[in-house]
Amino acid sequence: LDSTVETTHLRSRVPDPRLVALDWGTSSLRTFLLGDAGILLEERFLPFGIMRLPAMGDASRGERRDRFEIAFEQGCGDWVRSRPSLPVIAAGMVGSAQGWCEAPYLPVPVSVRDIGNYLIGFRSAQGHLIRIVPGLKQTSGPIDVMRGEETQVLGALPTSDKPGHDQDFLFGLPGTHSKWVDVSRGQIVHFTTYMTGEVYAVLCAHTILGQTMDLNSHPDPAAFEQGVRFASSDAGEAGFLSNIFSTRALGLVGSLSAANQSEYLSGILIAHELGFLSKTRRSEVGQTLALKPIILVGEDSLCTRYLRALKLLGYQNMQVASNAMQRGLWNIAVQAQLVN
Amino acid sequence: LDSTVETTHLRSRVPDPRLVALDWGTSSLRTFLLGDAGILLEERFLPFGIMRLPAMGDASRGERRDRFEIAFEQGCGDWVRSRPSLPVIAAGMVGSAQGWCEAPYLPVPVSVRDIGNYLIGFRSAQGHLIRIVPGLKQTSGPIDVMRGEETQVLGALPTSDKPGHDQDFLFGLPGTHSKWVDVSRGQIVHFTTYMTGEVYAVLCAHTILGQTMDLNSHPDPAAFEQGVRFASSDAGEAGFLSNIFSTRALGLVGSLSAANQSEYLSGILIAHELGFLSKTRRSEVGQTLALKPIILVGEDSLCTRYLRALKLLGYQNMQVASNAMQRGLWNIAVQAQLVN
Repeated sequence: LDSTVETTHLRSRVPDPRLVALDWGTSSLRTFLLGDAGILLEERFLPFGIMRLPAMGDASRGERRDRFEIAFEQGCGDWVRSRPSLPVIAAGMVGSAQGWCEAPYLPVPVSVRDIGNYLIGFRSAQGHLIRIVPGLKQTSGPIDVMRGEETQVLGALPTSDKPGHDQDFLFGLPGTHSKWVDVSRGQIVHFTTYMTGEVYAVLCAHTILGQTMDLNSHPDPAAFEQGVRFASSDAGEAGFLSNIFSTRALGLVGSLSAANQSEYLSGILIAHELGFLSKTRRSEVGQTLALKPIILVGEDSLCTRYLRALKLLGYQNMQVASNAMQRGLWNIAVQAQLVN
Repeated sequence: LDSTVETTHLRSRVPDPRLVALDWGTSSLRTFLLGDAGILLEERFLPFGIMRLPAMGDASRGERRDRFEIAFEQGCGDWVRSRPSLPVIAAGMVGSAQGWCEAPYLPVPVSVRDIGNYLIGFRSAQGHLIRIVPGLKQTSGPIDVMRGEETQVLGALPTSDKPGHDQDFLFGLPGTHSKWVDVSRGQIVHFTTYMTGEVYAVLCAHTILGQTMDLNSHPDPAAFEQGVRFASSDAGEAGFLSNIFSTRALGLVGSLSAANQSEYLSGILIAHELGFLSKTRRSEVGQTLALKPIILVGEDSLCTRYLRALKLLGYQNMQVASNAMQRGLWNIAVQAQLVN
């Protein structure tokens, strides 16, 4: 008996793993080994998004399914082999039609507390049971889809034991494809995708706007704010396709240096993304919307950029959430009773 | 005396050349040999835009100035050598800072009848005098610039001997960088650039939107109209960066076939470009604007596309101008008394 107690005591110094959680997107795979209460024990980052799966041996090709197996093995094979009963959960594009196992979209509105009831399970070639979080589909109003962001929203949702914790929030998830997600009383009621990050990248890399940019100099941070102000002024009424050209026009007449053009353009794009806030605020619905606290989820540098733009536009009630995906995956595993 | 008459008579069958006119843009060079009253005697097309100048011999490089000389020689060297007194006029990016000889911008407002007073002349290495049409710069309101379109507007401006021919017009010049030019009482008073064509091309070639497009099938023309309607509906309020994503979202849920996605996206972009019309119409200025006749100048297929969108949006007073650049170059040469 004594020896058993001793062993338990020793083990408690290194918490037992409870869950393998996968954030598996288009361009990368992050794996988390989580302990009790979702505490992070180990984390790995691999460049094996579903559109960048590892090659197979010399052949550099192979069945797509096999390439998922290799990525999974490299991301967490040792974790699941050493404890075969460890549950595995994954969110993101891994559940898309191009993913490892398709998890059909859930329609919105959906309660974030219900998502764990709709996991899709399948077994890997090695026999590990893997559960996939479904994405969301919006069919009333403009059609839209998300995969992974529903999990981040759940992970970033403030929790409280106090009554009334089902406050309304507006979640902003800036990135390649930014999402803005409207959460009311614990339900995702509406969301909108903006291709801001991807459009910014192609404008810089593949259009005339990039040709005059000097990306090696330190830009003046004021250039970003200049872009935000321009696009949110009356000049913004000319629209996105016109506003972006001002980057070049200002450069041609010597009013915007090569070093500052990328920051200025970034300000224009983000202001156009955030334009819906003021448009909605003008309408009746918006009166409510603008009063909701805004929670940003994403890379720190990107969230900082959005915070600056939001402040310039007059918004005040903003916060940035961290570890949203990791926390969301844990919460969904709890909902699904994969962990206690 | 008789023999002189005979010679004149023979010559009259092949009209005398009066002007060499060059439409020299970023990606191509078009040369026109024009006779009395601007009649077209000969036309050439060369892929030698100022950013695609011909290489020099084996070296495939060379001084930029020399490469302009080669392009000029290939475009019209024989014409000017056979008649050294023939005046030469050029419009477009050839007069930019990256051009052959920089012609400083004229500020708007400017009377289209005055442009010929501001030609910049220089001599080629062979000694030919070449006159460049200046571009226009707008510094009140949003900064903007054009080079070449001022000449097209002049060439497309309806002329009449009747009093009141100084009617107001709105010129639309769709293309890689579309321009909308507001002409009032013979003056270019305001203009705006839209990067519609270039942004459309990079969205198809370099973003996720292009990945699901099937560009080899025949699209349903209704898909273009579906895009126009979507972007000009309430859904358009979410903005350009969101609206374009609907191409993918509709595809993912099976509501937009791969064959139709490029047409749908084209409709979204053109509707966003044309959005300024309804925005301006809402304001006081717009009441006037929307009543102006719209004159489109550009490639036939592109003008047809814009006509369809304009009709869908409820506009009626539109026409398409042809040979605008050739006619504009002739008109400016007349203003400058290079020809009678």
